[in-house]
Amino acid sequence: MSFPPIRPELAGIEPYGAPQLPIDRVPVQLNVNENPYGPSEECIADIAAAAADAARTLNRYPDREFVALRTALASYLSRDVAGEITPDQVWAANGSNEVMLQLLQAFGGPGRTALSFAPTYSMYPEYARDTHTRWVAGRREDDFSLDLDVARDLVKTEQPGVILLPSPNNPTGTALPPDAIGVLCEAAGDGLVVVDEAYGEFRRAGVPSALELLPTYRNLVVTRTMSKAFAGAGLRLGYLAADPAICDAIRVVRLPYHLSAVTQAVALAALGHAPELLSKVDELRAERDALVDWLRSESYDIADSDANFVLFGRFADRHAVWQGLLDRGVLIRETGPDGWLRVSVGTPDEMAAFRAALIEVTQSDVNGERA
Amino acid sequence: MSFPPIRPELAGIEPYGAPQLPIDRVPVQLNVNENPYGPSEECIADIAAAAADAARTLNRYPDREFVALRTALASYLSRDVAGEITPDQVWAANGSNEVMLQLLQAFGGPGRTALSFAPTYSMYPEYARDTHTRWVAGRREDDFSLDLDVARDLVKTEQPGVILLPSPNNPTGTALPPDAIGVLCEAAGDGLVVVDEAYGEFRRAGVPSALELLPTYRNLVVTRTMSKAFAGAGLRLGYLAADPAICDAIRVVRLPYHLSAVTQAVALAALGHAPELLSKVDELRAERDALVDWLRSESYDIADSDANFVLFGRFADRHAVWQGLLDRGVLIRETGPDGWLRVSVGTPDEMAAFRAALIEVTQSDVNGERA
Repeated sequence: MSFPPIRPELAGIEPYGAPQLPIDRVPVQLNVNENPYGPSEECIADIAAAAADAARTLNRYPDREFVALRTALASYLSRDVAGEITPDQVWAANGSNEVMLQLLQAFGGPGRTALSFAPTYSMYPEYARDTHTRWVAGRREDDFSLDLDVARDLVKTEQPGVILLPSPNNPTGTALPPDAIGVLCEAAGDGLVVVDEAYGEFRRAGVPSALELLPTYRNLVVTRTMSKAFAGAGLRLGYLAADPAICDAIRVVRLPYHLSAVTQAVALAALGHAPELLSKVDELRAERDALVDWLRSESYDIADSDANFVLFGRFADRHAVWQGLLDRGVLIRETGPDGWLRVSVGTPDEMAAFRAALIEVTQSDVNGERA
Repeated sequence: MSFPPIRPELAGIEPYGAPQLPIDRVPVQLNVNENPYGPSEECIADIAAAAADAARTLNRYPDREFVALRTALASYLSRDVAGEITPDQVWAANGSNEVMLQLLQAFGGPGRTALSFAPTYSMYPEYARDTHTRWVAGRREDDFSLDLDVARDLVKTEQPGVILLPSPNNPTGTALPPDAIGVLCEAAGDGLVVVDEAYGEFRRAGVPSALELLPTYRNLVVTRTMSKAFAGAGLRLGYLAADPAICDAIRVVRLPYHLSAVTQAVALAALGHAPELLSKVDELRAERDALVDWLRSESYDIADSDANFVLFGRFADRHAVWQGLLDRGVLIRETGPDGWLRVSVGTPDEMAAFRAALIEVTQSDVNGERA
């Protein structure tokens, strides 16, 4: 060991995370798929009152089983399905991040495999690395869809403990076709199929949620977050719905009292304002579709998006385009396959600023050249 | 794999955690070493205002590096030392639990060893299990102290990546002698020596904090929590002070945005009330010393305590005594070596209720017999 005695496979690795730049220097921030609309004054007041209530007994540990919050989350998810999601089918943690880590701690780990299909969310291999789970990435097609036969064969060959299937996928925005989940749940045997619906509420009309399939496949896990459609990125509340036996197994690896009394109270208060917080979703979907249309009209390659972001390209030097936009006060994300860039859907004003900056960068600068 | 496909070594394990019973059924709760005194109305109001401020931009991700909170924690710790603790020497997470998990993720893991001395905090082997770190527990003497020569030899033999040294120790209350930390830091080579001062503020006069030794030993890590002396168990905020290179290495394994905007804001607000929140510490120390005296006068075996709890015994059937107390509305903790029980230090009224219940149980019931 040398000092500090960090594990050799972690030495020299940069911590995960997009650049965080101050809003007064970079006024248009479209890089981490946040919802551009904050909560109303009524919602803020309810959150403050909930925090005050929690503070009154802040000397006491929180409810380790967060029963009230699980009940509210179950009720919220039940809007999306024909049947009912019950509280014992719900689990939550400090962001989907922690939910995923717990899933891999319990169902992955040394000697087991986690599988996804690239390009996909760049934290997935980090969850695997941090839990010593073997990581296998199949490939998506050129249009970022899955070839289901190839995917099924890979699942059967690798027999993963956990399959991570984001729908819509990050950073491409691609939703899974309705039959994919069933096919892969069957191919997985007792392995878990985790459909990551972090961006699920932004899906286009006619695209179903995997929640509908929970009664059919006991090895199906659907994860959600309050960070995106729910406009609660600062709250760090991710959750899942699954067979109660799966939730119960996660309890073995969760750190006791992992959700603070304040987090539980504030999340509950925010859930009480779900209609308001979600009311901007339709607006953002329309803005997203308009963005896709505009980028297409400008002859960009673009992936169909069911999310609140769009992947577009391709650039000979994407970093130069990213930097050119940043120089003009617009921060987007340099991520995904080489040559592509990802932009979050913001307010109409933010999108106008993005369009103007992109036109400037690509017309004035040789680096804006398409690949 | 069977369903659910939990890892075989986790199957059938009960999740960690003391019983959580409603306060209306069990009015005297002395089982999880909480501070019995809640925050003042002024502190509650400041916490509510901080939560409201955070809620205003809840749609945005929090500061991943929590600079304001690190700065405030560094300033708070600097009160305890001759020099100054700087923000880059501070790291924080959702409870000491998460701090410890991150330490073992970065500096433990497969092929490495974590070492402590039993009896000690029962979560330590769980952190090791959850990170696939080999777990070695040396033994404490009969009075729960460390034989330093034996401890040093064990460290040299095992060459652990991480040594966990609680001071005061949970559940025995035993503080480390001043020379122990230096001896073990030297024996550890580049391995980390983590002095867990979760209960550090309750130490008796003349017992130093390990913070004083940070400038001397670069492999020393001192962990603290806002849960105990700070009366913030519901807040879930643990932190550490160490060489900046250690803090920096932890950033590789931390989940991005692990501390919510609300947690950061509320912790900052609470830190602003440090004098108030800590003012009860002297009272609790006096109550602790009175409890020790009373238990000794009743001829119990008892470990000297520098914490806000006391380990006492020994009972032929400690579970029966625990149950007898619970039947009388007093919840304590059945933990530590066989025959012993642990009781937290509460308010004067709570301690009176505990004493009365213990007298009843041990006088009326054959199960109260000493071992």
